[in-house]
Amino acid sequence: MAPVGSKRGVLERLDAGEVVIGDGGFVFALEKRGYVKAGPWTPEAAAEHPEAVRQLHREFLRAGSNVMQTFTFYASDDKLENRGNKLTFTGQQINEAACDLAREVANEGDALVAGGVSQTPSYLSCKSEDEVKKIFKKQLDVFIKKNVDFLIAEYFEHVEEAEWAVQVLKATGKPVAATLCIGPEGDMHGVSPGECAVRLVKAGADIVGVNCHFDPMTCVKTVAMMKAGVEKAGLKAHYMTQPLAYHTPDCSCQGFIDLPEFPFALEPRILTRWEMQHYAREAYKAGIRYIGGCCGFEPYHIRAVAEELATERGILPEASEKHGMWGSGLEMHTKPWVRARARRDYWERLKPASGRPLCPSMSTPDGWGVTRGHAELMQQKEATTAEQLRPLFQKYQREMRIALPPSLLRLQTLIS
Amino acid sequence: MAPVGSKRGVLERLDAGEVVIGDGGFVFALEKRGYVKAGPWTPEAAAEHPEAVRQLHREFLRAGSNVMQTFTFYASDDKLENRGNKLTFTGQQINEAACDLAREVANEGDALVAGGVSQTPSYLSCKSEDEVKKIFKKQLDVFIKKNVDFLIAEYFEHVEEAEWAVQVLKATGKPVAATLCIGPEGDMHGVSPGECAVRLVKAGADIVGVNCHFDPMTCVKTVAMMKAGVEKAGLKAHYMTQPLAYHTPDCSCQGFIDLPEFPFALEPRILTRWEMQHYAREAYKAGIRYIGGCCGFEPYHIRAVAEELATERGILPEASEKHGMWGSGLEMHTKPWVRARARRDYWERLKPASGRPLCPSMSTPDGWGVTRGHAELMQQKEATTAEQLRPLFQKYQREMRIALPPSLLRLQTLIS
Amino acid sequence: MAPVGSKRGVLERLDAGEVVIGDGGFVFALEKRGYVKAGPWTPEAAAEHPEAVRQLHREFLRAGSNVMQTFTFYASDDKLENRGNKLTFTGQQINEAACDLAREVANEGDALVAGGVSQTPSYLSCKSEDEVKKIFKKQLDVFIKKNVDFLIAEYFEHVEEAEWAVQVLKATGKPVAATLCIGPEGDMHGVSPGECAVRLVKAGADIVGVNCHFDPMTCVKTVAMMKAGVEKAGLKAHYMTQPLAYHTPDCSCQGFIDLPEFPFALEPRILTRWEMQHYAREAYKAGIRYIGGCCGFEPYHIRAVAEELATERGILPEASEKHGMWGSGLEMHTKPWVRARARRDYWERLKPASGRPLCPSMSTPDGWGVTRGHAELMQQKEATTAEQLRPLFQKYQREMRIALPPSLLRLQTLIS
Amino acid sequence: MAPVGSKRGVLERLDAGEVVIGDGGFVFALEKRGYVKAGPWTPEAAAEHPEAVRQLHREFLRAGSNVMQTFTFYASDDKLENRGNKLTFTGQQINEAACDLAREVANEGDALVAGGVSQTPSYLSCKSEDEVKKIFKKQLDVFIKKNVDFLIAEYFEHVEEAEWAVQVLKATGKPVAATLCIGPEGDMHGVSPGECAVRLVKAGADIVGVNCHFDPMTCVKTVAMMKAGVEKAGLKAHYMTQPLAYHTPDCSCQGFIDLPEFPFALEPRILTRWEMQHYAREAYKAGIRYIGGCCGFEPYHIRAVAEELATERGILPEASEKHGMWGSGLEMHTKPWVRARARRDYWERLKPASGRPLCPSMSTPDGWGVTRGHAELMQQKEATTAEQLRPLFQKYQREMRIALPPSLLRLQTLIS
Repeated sequence: MAPVGSKRGVLERLDAGEVVIGDGGFVFALEKRGYVKAGPWTPEAAAEHPEAVRQLHREFLRAGSNVMQTFTFYASDDKLENRGNKLTFTGQQINEAACDLAREVANEGDALVAGGVSQTPSYLSCKSEDEVKKIFKKQLDVFIKKNVDFLIAEYFEHVEEAEWAVQVLKATGKPVAATLCIGPEGDMHGVSPGECAVRLVKAGADIVGVNCHFDPMTCVKTVAMMKAGVEKAGLKAHYMTQPLAYHTPDCSCQGFIDLPEFPFALEPRILTRWEMQHYAREAYKAGIRYIGGCCGFEPYHIRAVAEELATERGILPEASEKHGMWGSGLEMHTKPWVRARARRDYWERLKPASGRPLCPSMSTPDGWGVTRGHAELMQQKEATTAEQLRPLFQKYQREMRIALPPSLLRLQTLIS
Repeated sequence: MAPVGSKRGVLERLDAGEVVIGDGGFVFALEKRGYVKAGPWTPEAAAEHPEAVRQLHREFLRAGSNVMQTFTFYASDDKLENRGNKLTFTGQQINEAACDLAREVANEGDALVAGGVSQTPSYLSCKSEDEVKKIFKKQLDVFIKKNVDFLIAEYFEHVEEAEWAVQVLKATGKPVAATLCIGPEGDMHGVSPGECAVRLVKAGADIVGVNCHFDPMTCVKTVAMMKAGVEKAGLKAHYMTQPLAYHTPDCSCQGFIDLPEFPFALEPRILTRWEMQHYAREAYKAGIRYIGGCCGFEPYHIRAVAEELATERGILPEASEKHGMWGSGLEMHTKPWVRARARRDYWERLKPASGRPLCPSMSTPDGWGVTRGHAELMQQKEATTAEQLRPLFQKYQREMRIALPPSLLRLQTLIS
Repeated sequence: MAPVGSKRGVLERLDAGEVVIGDGGFVFALEKRGYVKAGPWTPEAAAEHPEAVRQLHREFLRAGSNVMQTFTFYASDDKLENRGNKLTFTGQQINEAACDLAREVANEGDALVAGGVSQTPSYLSCKSEDEVKKIFKKQLDVFIKKNVDFLIAEYFEHVEEAEWAVQVLKATGKPVAATLCIGPEGDMHGVSPGECAVRLVKAGADIVGVNCHFDPMTCVKTVAMMKAGVEKAGLKAHYMTQPLAYHTPDCSCQGFIDLPEFPFALEPRILTRWEMQHYAREAYKAGIRYIGGCCGFEPYHIRAVAEELATERGILPEASEKHGMWGSGLEMHTKPWVRARARRDYWERLKPASGRPLCPSMSTPDGWGVTRGHAELMQQKEATTAEQLRPLFQKYQREMRIALPPSLLRLQTLIS
Repeated sequence: MAPVGSKRGVLERLDAGEVVIGDGGFVFALEKRGYVKAGPWTPEAAAEHPEAVRQLHREFLRAGSNVMQTFTFYASDDKLENRGNKLTFTGQQINEAACDLAREVANEGDALVAGGVSQTPSYLSCKSEDEVKKIFKKQLDVFIKKNVDFLIAEYFEHVEEAEWAVQVLKATGKPVAATLCIGPEGDMHGVSPGECAVRLVKAGADIVGVNCHFDPMTCVKTVAMMKAGVEKAGLKAHYMTQPLAYHTPDCSCQGFIDLPEFPFALEPRILTRWEMQHYAREAYKAGIRYIGGCCGFEPYHIRAVAEELATERGILPEASEKHGMWGSGLEMHTKPWVRARARRDYWERLKPASGRPLCPSMSTPDGWGVTRGHAELMQQKEATTAEQLRPLFQKYQREMRIALPPSLLRLQTLIS
C-alpha cells in the first residue's frame, strides 16, 4: 500500500501523455444492486451501506480504474432534501463517508481520489450565483478536510453553473476537471461544445470534457468539438470523457433523460464489452486521455477500456485474470461451437440481436422544451403532490395523442 | 439472527402454499464484476474473493431471496480441471468456502441454504453411472458436513444424468430439488418435459422444474408441461423455475448456448424489471411456487419478482426501501416529463427500443447437432490446442458461408 | 396463337412431371392500381375496366404464368351484394367478362384458363349445404359455357365448404384443383392439413394445396404436411401452392387477416425477388409442381419463380428480356459501386433493412376467436351501420387496453 | 375530351395557388411489370410495349395526376447506347412514342403533358458544355414537334449540368421546371440546396425542387431549404417535389443509390398510403404546390396525395371510387375485427411491422466517394467487361472486410 500523497498526480500523468482510466457511474450500478433510489438518485448509501459502496469501488479498481470518485453525486444539501426525499444522514456525514471509502480502496492500488460536485436544484430554481456557490463550497470543505487528490465538477447541463463550480473548486489549488452532460448541440442554452470548453478552461479547469447523457461515440465526437474549440482559442487543456453505457442514437439535446426508456427500461441499449473497446480506441485516437464511464457502466465495461489500451498503458488490469482477450477464454468451453467463438473477428463483426421482435430499434424522445426559468422546472423541498402530477400526466397523454393516435378523442366521443 | 435450524424448511413452506423466492445466477453476475472467467465458468471466487461472493449473496437477500444457493456451480473436480483450467484451490476448499458464505448471509435474514450440484464433463465424455455418481458424492460430502438446509441438482441437459444426481442427493434424507436446462422440446435426447418430470419425481425429487437456457416465459411454459405430466402420472411434486434474464425467442432445444450472442453480446436481450414482474405473475398463475432466476439476473430482477408477489407473500423486500413500486420514485425526479412516468401503465405498455438500428431483432442459432457420444463433445484435462481449434474455426466459416454468402467461394476464386 | 383446346391440359403437364407456374393475386394488385375496393374485394373491374384486367393478365403471362385464372374471386352473387356493396353489373356479366379476358390473353401464349370459385358469405352465415352449393353452381354455369380448361376451388377457411365446392366442380368432368387458406395449424375448425388434404382428394380434387393467408415458406410447409397426409392414406394427388408475397412469421391460424397491418400497411412485409427464388426452389424440393402466388404478388415475383426454375422448365419467361439473372443487368449501371452488386452472392446474403427504426419487426395478431356460427360473423346485405361499428370499435379499444396501456382507464379517471 | 391547348397551363394553375399533382416514376413501376431493365433503366417500352406504358399513364390519371410526364427518362442517345445496352428503336422513335402516349392519356382527363430531360453520361464523362447541351437539344426537338405543354429538367446530381439543361429548355419559351436529385447536404459538388435553387431560377426555371434519391420528408425538408434560399435572394419561383416512395433515413448525400438494398431489395422501405398522406400534408404546409412522386410510387400512392388534398383541390380523384377515405371501405369486410379498423386514428397511429426479425432497421450506405472526374465514373459504349468488374468486386469485398469481419483475412490464413 502506497503512503497517501506518494502517488503521481492526475496532471503529472496526463502531462506525461499517459492514459488515465476513470470509473463507472455509481448511482445506476447501485440502483440495480438495491442501494440507490431512482428519482432522487442521492448517495446516502456511502453512510448507510458502506460495504456495498466499498465493493463497487474495489471492482472498478480491479477493472483498471486509476480514479476513485467519491460517491457524492447529488450530495449537496439542497438536492438531498429535494421533492420530499427523507434522509437519516446529514450531507456532511454522507460526503465524509464517501471520501473515506474512496481513499480506503484507492490505497489498495494505483488510484487517486477525486472529489466531485454536480449541478444543483438551486441553479434550476434561479437562485443567485452566491447561493449556488455556497452549495459547492459546503461539499468542498469536506473534500479539503479529507484531502482528496483532485476535484471534478461534473454533470452540468448549463455551462454557466459549471463555470461557477470550477471557480469555487479552483480556489483550493487542487487540479480541477470539468465535464458537462451535453452532446454536439451544446448546453441547454445552446452554447456550443467548443465555446463551453473555452469558458471552462478560462474559469480554471485543467481537464475538460463531457459525462453522462449520451453514448460513447457521441461523447467522443462532442469532446473532439471541445478540443477543436480550445485549440482554436489558443488555449491548452487535457480532455476527458465519461459517457453512458447505453446506445442513444435517437436522443436530442437533453440526452437519455428524454428517452421513453429512461430510467427503467434501458436494458436493450447496454453496450457490449466489444463496443466499449471500440469506444476506448476512438477516444484515444481523438486525443482524449482521461477515459472513463458513467451511468450503465459495470466493472466489465471499464475492464474492456483497460484491455483495449493495454499496450499503450503497458499493463493489464487485475480483473483480466478472469477474462480472455477477445473471447479466448472460450477455448475452455464445453461445447465445440462455443469454442469456435474464441476469436476477435467473431466478436468484432457480430451485430447482436435484441430478442425483442415486438420492439422498435429507436424511440421518439420526449421534447417538452422546458429549461431553467420555466415554472415546471422549479424545484421544491416538499413531495410532489397528486395535484402537481395531474397536469403532467395530462400533458403526457396529450403528447401521446399527437404523436400516436391523433383521433383517440374522436373515438372516445363515439364510444361514450 | 435466527439460530441455525430454527427456520421453516423449504418443503414446509411450499406445503403451506407459500412462495419461495430463489436467487439469481452467480457466474454471470460475478463475471461482469470481474471474479469469474467465462469459458470454464468455475466458482473459485468463493475461496479467492469471498468478499465479492458475500456481497452478491447480501444483495439477493435484500432483494427478497429466501434461498442462498452455495456458489458451487461447476465445482466438481472433473470440471474444475477441464480443458486447461488451472486452480490454486482444491474442489473441497471451494465447496466449503461457498457453504460458509451462503450460511453466513442466510443467517442475516429469512433464508435457507441450498447446496447445488450440476452436470459433469464426465457424463458428456460417456463415463459410467458409478463414475458420475462418485463426482456428485464428493461435493455432497461437503454439503452434509456443512449441514445445508436442502439440495438442488440443477443445470442438467440430460434427464438420465439428473436422475443419477437425484438418487445420490436423496440418499441424504434432505429435501431435493431438480431442475433441467431444457425447453418445451425436451432434453438433449428428446425426452419430453412431462416425461422428464415424472422420471425426476420417481428418482426422489420433491421439487422439479427448469433453470437457465431459456427466457422466463419459455421456462414457465416448460414447467407447466412438467406439471401436466406429473399430474397425469398421478404423482405429486412442487414446481420451480429459475430462468435466464435474457429474451430467447429464437432459441432451439439447446437454448441460449446456441445463440451467436452467447456469452459476450447478450446485453440487448436483458429483461427489464417490468418484464420480470410479468414473469413472476405468470409463474404464480401456472402454479409454480419456487420462483427464482439464473444467468443474467441481477438483484433488481429478484426484487421485481418479490414486489410483484408482495401481496401473496405479505411482505416487501428490504431493497424496496430504495425502489418505488411501478416507478413511483420518479415523483421525486428533477424533470417534469420524467415525473410524468411515475405510473404503472406507462411502464407496463412501453416497448423499449434497442438503440441499435443496424442490428436485427432475432438471430439464427448455431445448430451443430452434436450431443453426448459425439467425438467433438469429449472433454479433456488439457487446454484446447490450436490444432483442435482449427477445424472448429473452419466449420464455423463453412456454416457461415452456407447461411450467409453462398458464393463467397466463387468470389474468392474470381479475385485470386 | 394456338387454337383453343390444342394445348396440353394441366393434368397432362403435371403427370409428366412438369412445373406449372400460376399467376399472382388480382385483387391486391388491382387495388393498388385503382380498380378494386379493399373491403368488399369484388372483381367488377372485369366488366368495368377490362383494359386494366387484360394488362395484368398479360404481365403475368410475360412473367411466365402457365395459368390465367379468371378474375372471379368473390364473384358469387351473395358476396357481390354483401354489406352494402353496390354494383352496376350482374354476377353473370362479371363472370363472363372475366372468362373472356382470361381466354384472350391465354391464347397469346402457352397458358390455360382456370375458372375459380371461393368461399361464400352464405357458409359463414350457416346456410345449408344445398344453398351453398347453388351459389357455386351459378358461377360454374358460366365457366362451362365459356369452356375453361380446368377449375379451382380456392380460398376456403373451412374444409367442409371446400369439399362441397369440389363436389360441385367435379361433376363437370373437368380437372379440379382445391386450395385452402390455412397454415400448419389447420382449418378454422382445427382440422389438420393432412386430414384436410385427404378429404379434398376423396371429394374429387386432382390437385390440392393452399393459397393466400400465409407467407411462401409457411405455405410450403403446410403443403408438405398435406402431401404426407395424402401419401399416408395411400391416395394420390398433385400439389399446389399460391402463397402471399408478404412475410407473416407472426400469424396465428387465421393468417394475415389478423395482422394489424392488414390490408393497408403491409408494405414492409413484401418479399423481394430473391426471396421468391428461394420459395420456388423450396416448393420444388418439397415435391410441389403447381407453383404460383396470391395477394401481394406482382409480375416480377412470378418472373422470379420462373427464373429460379428455368433449368427444370427448359425456358426463360419473355419478361426476362428485361431482367438480368441475379442482378447481372447492373453491369450496365452508371455507378461503379452498383456494378459491384451484379452478383448472385450479393443478393442472396443481403438482409434488407426496413428504413423504419420506429417500427417493430413483428406484430401481435388480433385474436378475436370468432368463427362460423358466431353472431359477429353473420353476413348481411345491408351496409354496416354506425350502431354495429360502435361495439367493434369499443372492443378494439378494450383489447388495446389489455394488450398495451393496462391502466389508461385509471389515467382517464384521474384526468376527467 | 378537351381540345389540345384549351387547358389551363401549369403556371396559370400555380399562379392561382392551385395544387398540381404529379405522377409517379415509370422506370421502377414498369420494371416490376416486366418492361424496363434495371441497370440501363432506359425507356424503350414506349415504342416496344405502348399498351403497358399507356395503362400506367391511365392509372396515374385515375389516381389524380394533373401531369403526364413523357416516359423519356434516360432517353438521350448517349445514355441509350451506354455500357453495351442494345436497342431496336432509335432515340427519336422512343421520344416520339412517349410523347404520343402521354398526350393520348392526358386528353382523357384534366392533365398536361410535360417533356422531360435528365442527366447524361456525357456530363459524368467530362464532355464540354456544348456537347452536353446538344444532347438535350436533340430530345427537345421532339418535344417541340409534339408540342408538349411544358418542360422538366429532372434527376440532376450536379447543379451545373441542370443549369445547362434549363438554359436549353428555356429557349423554347415554354414553362420550365427543374428538379435535382439531392438532399439537405446539397449537390455532388457540395453546393447547398438554397444556392442550387437560386442558380436554377437565374438560369430560367419557373419551378424548382427535387426528385428521386430521398424519401418524402427529406425531400420536403430540402425544398424548404431551396425556398428559403430563393426568397433570401429576393427571387420568385414555384416549388416542386417528386420523392421516392422508400424510407431512406440512413442515406448520405448520394441518396438511395448508396443503400445496399438498391435496387432489388427495397421492398421493406415502401411507404404506406397513410405515410403518403402525411407527406402531402407536410409538402403543402411547406408551401410546395407541385406535389408528385418518383421511383417506388404506384398509382395508389398518388391517389393518397390527391385524397389528402381533396379539400384544397375541391375534387376527389376518379380512383377514389375504389377507395374508402381512411379505411372506411373496411366497413364492408367479412371479419368483424377488420371492420374495427375502418377508422382514421387506427391507420394514423399504426407502426407497421416488417415481418423480418432477422433484418435490421437501417443499413450502412456504400460510401465510395467517387464523383464526376473520377476514372471509375467514366461512362462507355461497350459492355462492362469481366476485367472491369473484378476490381469492383474486390473493392466491395475489401470494404466489407473493413466494415464487418475485420480479421477474416487472419482466419483465412489460419485455415489455409
